[in-house]
Amino acid sequence: MATTTVIECSPPVSQQDIEEILRTFSYSKHIVRNGKHFIIGNGKISRKELPFIHDSFTLKYVDSPFPLCSQEFQAKKSVVKVRDIEIGNGSPVIIAGPCSVESREQILTISTNLAAAGCHILRGGAFKPRTSPYSFQGLGHDGLKLLAEAREMSGLPFVTEVLTPVDVELVAGYADMLQIGARNMQNFALLREVGRTKKPVLLKRAPWADVVTWLQAAEYILAEGNFEVVLCERGIAATQASSGRHLDLAAVHKVQNLSHLPMIVDPSHGTGDRRLVGPMALASLEAGCDGLMLEVHHQPETSLSDKEQAISLEDYDGMLKKIKLLNSQMFVDPIKA
Amino acid sequence: MATTTVIECSPPVSQQDIEEILRTFSYSKHIVRNGKHFIIGNGKISRKELPFIHDSFTLKYVDSPFPLCSQEFQAKKSVVKVRDIEIGNGSPVIIAGPCSVESREQILTISTNLAAAGCHILRGGAFKPRTSPYSFQGLGHDGLKLLAEAREMSGLPFVTEVLTPVDVELVAGYADMLQIGARNMQNFALLREVGRTKKPVLLKRAPWADVVTWLQAAEYILAEGNFEVVLCERGIAATQASSGRHLDLAAVHKVQNLSHLPMIVDPSHGTGDRRLVGPMALASLEAGCDGLMLEVHHQPETSLSDKEQAISLEDYDGMLKKIKLLNSQMFVDPIKA
Amino acid sequence: MATTTVIECSPPVSQQDIEEILRTFSYSKHIVRNGKHFIIGNGKISRKELPFIHDSFTLKYVDSPFPLCSQEFQAKKSVVKVRDIEIGNGSPVIIAGPCSVESREQILTISTNLAAAGCHILRGGAFKPRTSPYSFQGLGHDGLKLLAEAREMSGLPFVTEVLTPVDVELVAGYADMLQIGARNMQNFALLREVGRTKKPVLLKRAPWADVVTWLQAAEYILAEGNFEVVLCERGIAATQASSGRHLDLAAVHKVQNLSHLPMIVDPSHGTGDRRLVGPMALASLEAGCDGLMLEVHHQPETSLSDKEQAISLEDYDGMLKKIKLLNSQMFVDPIKA
Amino acid sequence: MATTTVIECSPPVSQQDIEEILRTFSYSKHIVRNGKHFIIGNGKISRKELPFIHDSFTLKYVDSPFPLCSQEFQAKKSVVKVRDIEIGNGSPVIIAGPCSVESREQILTISTNLAAAGCHILRGGAFKPRTSPYSFQGLGHDGLKLLAEAREMSGLPFVTEVLTPVDVELVAGYADMLQIGARNMQNFALLREVGRTKKPVLLKRAPWADVVTWLQAAEYILAEGNFEVVLCERGIAATQASSGRHLDLAAVHKVQNLSHLPMIVDPSHGTGDRRLVGPMALASLEAGCDGLMLEVHHQPETSLSDKEQAISLEDYDGMLKKIKLLNSQMFVDPIKA
Repeated sequence: MATTTVIECSPPVSQQDIEEILRTFSYSKHIVRNGKHFIIGNGKISRKELPFIHDSFTLKYVDSPFPLCSQEFQAKKSVVKVRDIEIGNGSPVIIAGPCSVESREQILTISTNLAAAGCHILRGGAFKPRTSPYSFQGLGHDGLKLLAEAREMSGLPFVTEVLTPVDVELVAGYADMLQIGARNMQNFALLREVGRTKKPVLLKRAPWADVVTWLQAAEYILAEGNFEVVLCERGIAATQASSGRHLDLAAVHKVQNLSHLPMIVDPSHGTGDRRLVGPMALASLEAGCDGLMLEVHHQPETSLSDKEQAISLEDYDGMLKKIKLLNSQMFVDPIKA
Repeated sequence: MATTTVIECSPPVSQQDIEEILRTFSYSKHIVRNGKHFIIGNGKISRKELPFIHDSFTLKYVDSPFPLCSQEFQAKKSVVKVRDIEIGNGSPVIIAGPCSVESREQILTISTNLAAAGCHILRGGAFKPRTSPYSFQGLGHDGLKLLAEAREMSGLPFVTEVLTPVDVELVAGYADMLQIGARNMQNFALLREVGRTKKPVLLKRAPWADVVTWLQAAEYILAEGNFEVVLCERGIAATQASSGRHLDLAAVHKVQNLSHLPMIVDPSHGTGDRRLVGPMALASLEAGCDGLMLEVHHQPETSLSDKEQAISLEDYDGMLKKIKLLNSQMFVDPIKA
Repeated sequence: MATTTVIECSPPVSQQDIEEILRTFSYSKHIVRNGKHFIIGNGKISRKELPFIHDSFTLKYVDSPFPLCSQEFQAKKSVVKVRDIEIGNGSPVIIAGPCSVESREQILTISTNLAAAGCHILRGGAFKPRTSPYSFQGLGHDGLKLLAEAREMSGLPFVTEVLTPVDVELVAGYADMLQIGARNMQNFALLREVGRTKKPVLLKRAPWADVVTWLQAAEYILAEGNFEVVLCERGIAATQASSGRHLDLAAVHKVQNLSHLPMIVDPSHGTGDRRLVGPMALASLEAGCDGLMLEVHHQPETSLSDKEQAISLEDYDGMLKKIKLLNSQMFVDPIKA
Repeated sequence: MATTTVIECSPPVSQQDIEEILRTFSYSKHIVRNGKHFIIGNGKISRKELPFIHDSFTLKYVDSPFPLCSQEFQAKKSVVKVRDIEIGNGSPVIIAGPCSVESREQILTISTNLAAAGCHILRGGAFKPRTSPYSFQGLGHDGLKLLAEAREMSGLPFVTEVLTPVDVELVAGYADMLQIGARNMQNFALLREVGRTKKPVLLKRAPWADVVTWLQAAEYILAEGNFEVVLCERGIAATQASSGRHLDLAAVHKVQNLSHLPMIVDPSHGTGDRRLVGPMALASLEAGCDGLMLEVHHQPETSLSDKEQAISLEDYDGMLKKIKLLNSQMFVDPIKA
């Protein structure tokens, strides 16, 4: 693993300077973030070899396969803001909602109930990745409009999945946070495209990816200048002996050791079984993750997708009571009522 | 899967009758339990084909690869008694203690502290299965004596592992419950030997075994006449992507659907990481298992085995408080103080 | 699993009629292939319920999660043509070449040597999916031009990967076959886009996908009207116990039982270890697959990507000799010299 | 991983000296092999700390979790002799026969046919480990007698499984090689017991064990003084995505890098599918293993156990022809005809 050199430029250099650096040293990337330039090179470059760079610039040498995501680059934990909601500030965040937006009535019912019960961010799929081409593929643009209406009524910001680069602009026009699904964790064109927006991104882990590969996928987003990334564990592949899926909670500590990015857990996909959603939600928070993503439906049995893992509003309520019991001080502010 | 015929004989037939049945029908097993005879045959045998059997005998036809363990054979959930402690009666049972008995001081310190904090059964290894022949192999017979002394002082019955058939009589002479470890789940000679005792047996799941194979291993014990079997999930093999082990909580529901045997969960081996023991202990009880098995050490960092997964007595105390918080009514009686 | 009704319309109905069928019966798809319309519906619809359809229309009821890919829909094995090369005709096809096109010299050297040694189709990456954003990402459009030049010189048609929908038109303008990589197996927008071309598609299996999920991904391509799909097994995730990857040769028979699509095996990615490429290439052909995909480099140790698994031209030659030894009659025609 | 010190004593010291060394330095083991004493200690002990040891003694410092099995201890590859057959001498050895001895006719038919076709060692189970207590458990002692008769008639030495320590003396009285099955890989009492015999041992790999854990199991046998151990890969656990089992051929190279012990492959259990036995047998030999273990039955469809994976005598013949084709020089001597 080669050392990477990251140049943090403050005040910013001119575009011309950057291009000269890139030309001279064949650096692999240069990105812009908050008016600061970062140029990432393979190998350790000394300040002497960079005579033209400003004295105030900081040079960081990072030994990591995901330099910008690494603890070496940034020791302080990142806090990602989705409107007013902070993810990673020590108080767990709950993202909840249906798998898919199915109708106006459905999404408004669920979102207002969630807001009343206590919830930070609404989730709901408008563009749905489905294993079969003949399954319900989501309401698309109409779904985005309904989510916006639900946000209006419930006061909850929303996160929704974007499936392909050409849709990023459209989805980012509505959503408060862009979700990259597990199947797209290594859809690099899509990662780059959301990396070029200013929207927070929720990056799900692919079921076969180890933590390092996952963080390298996140690096694609940061390398384009978007540092507002939240990781989401959602269950990995299991062996033939297993009775279900493998929700990898040990990854919570692994990510915390390696990266400054916040990480939440989705026990709905992570277990695929509504009877285990509550137990694993509690375990995830006890393990120290920064929040949960939950599939909740007002009539789970009629859900058009992920029927087996959606919990009812009543179960959501019961789960929240237990969460508050264990984390008494934590939920005073962010969750209403 | 062939149908199995099980004959429940009450009042018992003579040994001679049984041998005639076996001779005539090439039945594969006959077992004695509580003065009742069970004869298990492959295939569905009608009463007409058994003219000599008593009218009061019951014939059961079971379609299961593990007939005696199955729900079809016995719909009512089994309750296994370890001295006064009932496992499977709806109130979760906590088994706790060190990986190995290391010294008199160690086991007495831990057991009296556990009894004070609240605990039902003490665990501790005297005969230790170790991956390397050069690792500490346990105190053997001396360890059994120390466990008996700890029982005397703490009032806690104890479970300890037996490794090989020739040791069963010795270990059963001391222990209140015999543990079959994960490595020995298919040590069939050992399963048969503990099946011939009257002692309750704790059968751990092998890391590569699915639930059906595990129940078939339990069937070896029941087929010898010992129905006092408690299953213990302790983590199965995971994929290369995983950050640790895979504690298969979905197996709790699978076992409950298939079998009448009680099932507990060992989050210490199941995670191999003390930071996850508490979270997964809560999740296991929330998932509805019948109890926990926990590695607790008064000085985890000096433990001679399983150092990474043993929790301290302080952590045990904290975990118990959370468990009681979530299961207020459950722990009034069985756990002291 | 619901039955699917497929209506094969010959002669074609009018667009208006099709829309009426789709509207009336909530049919999910209609595609045109070889001048025939196929209308795909969920559920079993009898001819009586479709009074307006032509007598010459065929109704097929398919019980499969991937109706168009299934044996029920088409019992006869498909043969996919890549220029003059037939994949699936009983004689195995060898696709070989470097992981990435690195330079003009490199691709011309390798391709002419492969053609001389015996090879059917050239492989080489122009757009490379890479785990790290700082790794070599391929030569892009320039790589396509070099592949076209290599085809000119060697006479070998070529397959190359396309990463994102917007590039499909460009890549299809050069390549004889489009590859969908393992990471993109469920990049549904991409699958649909290549489904709308007339180019043959090589669909790699994702490392966590079972055969059914893989065939459902192929169904996305067929459902757009492109039936020219070849499946490629390339190794799936393994457990922590494993010493490497798991090349799933049992999938060859599973696919042959379930689908009419041809299937090849890539032992280079499938093992990740050049010492196992030859052994597993032989095993794959012995298992009855329709061909191989191999990474070959004239100087494997200098390869810019997948260094560990590329074999040398000498090793390729040796492997081919063994293949011919075992399949004496098979390689007379398609492989030169 | 601590360094291990191995003292090789030649000429042998007195038992008294050995006990003093063990007492003084907390050495964990002393074994006798070929008239030499080996004393094994944890930690690096210098010659100065051992003033009383003879100048001619050799001190070896081994950094390995399985010191006696390691390449550091013995660089030269071990050759294990089963009567006249050498395993590990560069020429692959074929062990073949039925899963279980079922009848006199069966085992004599199969063994004489195998000898005629070409085979080195006969396999056949007398004591069978079976997942269900109601399955055929083998003919036991009678099976051993039939195997001895088959050896007499065919001229083939035989290997058969021993299940429990108490049977070792009986089985060793008949068999030329003792097999430890996958389920018993960590049955440490059994490993020690076969370690105390002089018989060659075939140690199968457990389906969840990595190579290091497997070699540590072998170390139990060597640590008792029996160095005649052959490892046998037989397939490890696979993921839910897999279509079958995972035969880990990469383990061949891993073992060769780590250990001096010979290693063979069992593609019958390793695939569980007779259609893959031939392909994977070829691949195993091409990967460089020291031999094969194959399930062959004269009437596979009537086999009492492992019906799906046994190949017929005809298929065995065909497979052998292909093996000879690829390894022309190898099979001249050891395989007859």
